[in-house]
Amino acid sequence: MKNSPALERIGVAIRKRREAERYSQESYADKIRMHRTYYSAIERGESNITLSTLERICKGLDIKMWEVLKEAES
Amino acid sequence: MKNSPALERIGVAIRKRREAERYSQESYADKIRMHRTYYSAIERGESNITLSTLERICKGLDIKMWEVLKEAES
Repeated sequence: MKNSPALERIGVAIRKRREAERYSQESYADKIRMHRTYYSAIERGESNITLSTLERICKGLDIKMWEVLKEAES
Repeated sequence: MKNSPALERIGVAIRKRREAERYSQESYADKIRMHRTYYSAIERGESNITLSTLERICKGLDIKMWEVLKEAES
């Protein structure tokens, strides 16, 4: 599913939420202790992340995983 | 997140949907060409699956990923 439409839409939904929370990519990656280049790849839909990683990202943004996926799948 | 509460609840939600669709674990694993033991571990919340794997499971059950996660996170 690397660079699949689903992953790309999930990346877009995460980015939108991160921007709404007024984090830069760099500051948010630092906050959740994730490598900046890896985090950036996730927002571009270039990494087939695990549920654990999705949960970690969503927790820091105070949003449920299902909410991100709903936006991505709708 | 191995055996985390979140993964366990996601496994339960998948199992519920699979049973509603009247598949046995074995027949459903075969349908989506997944090893039966691996599929069984997922329903028990013992595998930190990728979004690609979650998508594959959900497609075969004709349900959106967000619907499974919503049930699991609610």
